[in-house]
Amino acid sequence: VDEPGLCSFTFPALVDRNPVVLSVSSDGNAPMLARLLRSRLELMLPANYGRIAQLLGELRGPVAERITDPAQRLRFWEDLVDGPVAELVLAGREAEARTHITAVLARTAGVRGEVWLVGAGPGDPDLLTIKAWRLMQKADVVLYDRLVAPAIVDLCRKDAERVYVGKRMAEHSLPQQDINALLVSLAGEGRRVLRLKGGDPFIFGRGGEEIEALAEHRIPFQVVPGITAAAGCACYAGIPLTHRDHARSVRFVTGHRRDGAVQFRGDDFLDEEETLVFYMGLVALPDICRGLIEAGRDPTTPAALVQQGTTARQRVLVGSLASLPDIVASHDVKAPTLLIIGGVVTLHQKLSWYEGGASD
Amino acid sequence: VDEPGLCSFTFPALVDRNPVVLSVSSDGNAPMLARLLRSRLELMLPANYGRIAQLLGELRGPVAERITDPAQRLRFWEDLVDGPVAELVLAGREAEARTHITAVLARTAGVRGEVWLVGAGPGDPDLLTIKAWRLMQKADVVLYDRLVAPAIVDLCRKDAERVYVGKRMAEHSLPQQDINALLVSLAGEGRRVLRLKGGDPFIFGRGGEEIEALAEHRIPFQVVPGITAAAGCACYAGIPLTHRDHARSVRFVTGHRRDGAVQFRGDDFLDEEETLVFYMGLVALPDICRGLIEAGRDPTTPAALVQQGTTARQRVLVGSLASLPDIVASHDVKAPTLLIIGGVVTLHQKLSWYEGGASD
Repeated sequence: VDEPGLCSFTFPALVDRNPVVLSVSSDGNAPMLARLLRSRLELMLPANYGRIAQLLGELRGPVAERITDPAQRLRFWEDLVDGPVAELVLAGREAEARTHITAVLARTAGVRGEVWLVGAGPGDPDLLTIKAWRLMQKADVVLYDRLVAPAIVDLCRKDAERVYVGKRMAEHSLPQQDINALLVSLAGEGRRVLRLKGGDPFIFGRGGEEIEALAEHRIPFQVVPGITAAAGCACYAGIPLTHRDHARSVRFVTGHRRDGAVQFRGDDFLDEEETLVFYMGLVALPDICRGLIEAGRDPTTPAALVQQGTTARQRVLVGSLASLPDIVASHDVKAPTLLIIGGVVTLHQKLSWYEGGASD
Repeated sequence: VDEPGLCSFTFPALVDRNPVVLSVSSDGNAPMLARLLRSRLELMLPANYGRIAQLLGELRGPVAERITDPAQRLRFWEDLVDGPVAELVLAGREAEARTHITAVLARTAGVRGEVWLVGAGPGDPDLLTIKAWRLMQKADVVLYDRLVAPAIVDLCRKDAERVYVGKRMAEHSLPQQDINALLVSLAGEGRRVLRLKGGDPFIFGRGGEEIEALAEHRIPFQVVPGITAAAGCACYAGIPLTHRDHARSVRFVTGHRRDGAVQFRGDDFLDEEETLVFYMGLVALPDICRGLIEAGRDPTTPAALVQQGTTARQRVLVGSLASLPDIVASHDVKAPTLLIIGGVVTLHQKLSWYEGGASD
């Protein structure tokens, strides 16, 4: 087990027609790594990838004939393996797959750029989706902002161009319309553009605006969901967002507006059986807690602020609507933060399992 | 590019001290697969894994001395590489990592079972998190229910025991307390138990109840967020959940109760600038739409039902509070479904990009 050595193995699913043999050899002090590596290799191999390999083989001739440019041909193959065709084959619908391929081949005249709007999750790189990771390996250029953890940006293809487009309440490095325009122009040059956004692109990510611009310019795009901060922080802090004893629904609200003002009306949030989650609520925290109390919520309603959730710097500050503002003020809290309000917060003490490294 | 061949490569990050050499050879018709495989291999390798390898090497002697049972030693190494120690090393905090290791070594007396409560996402296996996939390869036994796509269960370690624990409104294969008890007893036997739940475990998953039982029995557990159905369906249907022109907040509500009754009060949901998402809302759909209209919502409020979102069988039915019930009744709609209500639904026509395979 923990002896150095060499292991070589063949993926069984591919053996019948198209063996892909991988040998993993480890030298020096990395035997466990080799073992882990080997176990992780299966990630890329749905059980019946072999059928796709067979189809690829049959197509090689016709494709080389129709697509003479090697770069274009590479992209065609990549799209074939990663796209709906693979899905169809894996689902046993090979006839449909062939029809689709014929159509794609016919219209493959020039290389078109495209944009992938991808959620990068709450911080822990391990919480990236497999799809996000895959597109990160394919993109020619990556646009990211401060809500994407550096450790995640580092995982993008090494030769991909990286563009920081900022976004912070007080320092808009690039206004939203400029980001939209940049996406359109990069894709217009035929590039494959990854737009990486913290959390989920459709939950307080303004992702909708970015792809509206793309749709207007008829640029192909995909949208890939990510673990939103509420889900990530809840799981890593041991605070279920719904729970039959405490909350039958959950509501995500943003704690700040573009102009910096908090338009907060506490009387919108009186349901005691609903968990409230405020994104970017650090600055507005005192206003939010006071507003809820003034609207009639019990000042002892439990509330938690999660700092840098899911990362090694996670810290959970727990109190009530009445006490949390002072608790937070007495700590050196760093963004990003998430505010969770409701009875479910009482479960934190019992269900907490993740040890963040942050301390005072 | 699309020629058969053999490629061999070394991970640069490991070269300095601990090379792990992987050679990928492809035979027959699988050259593209080998290429893709190679690109995907980097998934498992954060940039400075080399430092972990170095630490492993230094520890080999002391660990072999303290932990004589090979199975137990294997688990120790696995936990070391996957656990907080690796995080600490990657974050450059090696001193803390060593302190932690010493403590863990000291208390490693017997093998303890543990439970991983893991969100499996909305259906597309590509939307699993890397962490979920990793734990799926480690678990000794997997408990799953009908909301987890079979294609995802198939990705678990091949020799893992699989236990179907059911859960459907009308046919409770295993009552919740029995599932809780099963988790406790399996972990009590020293097994590593993966509890796979559709979507996210803390959003309508009753995950909180399951780990409460574990906490009461002092069984170690982890909770791994998953892409919740709302995020997955929204992205794949081109319906942003928040959008500055349409919705400044979003609310997740469940469309059914355990006893089958819908306790729905439309006047809780009058905010026109909030997106409403109903989980499991198919049966209650007519009640929900009528309730909202009776409470005062505009009958023309856009509404969409997403069937089997993110899968090849995704279908999006779009209408209004007034028209959607009839539209849905005239189609053969299959669970799971998600109901999205609010102005953001109008964006679907423009932003739709994913072609599900379902048709009438």
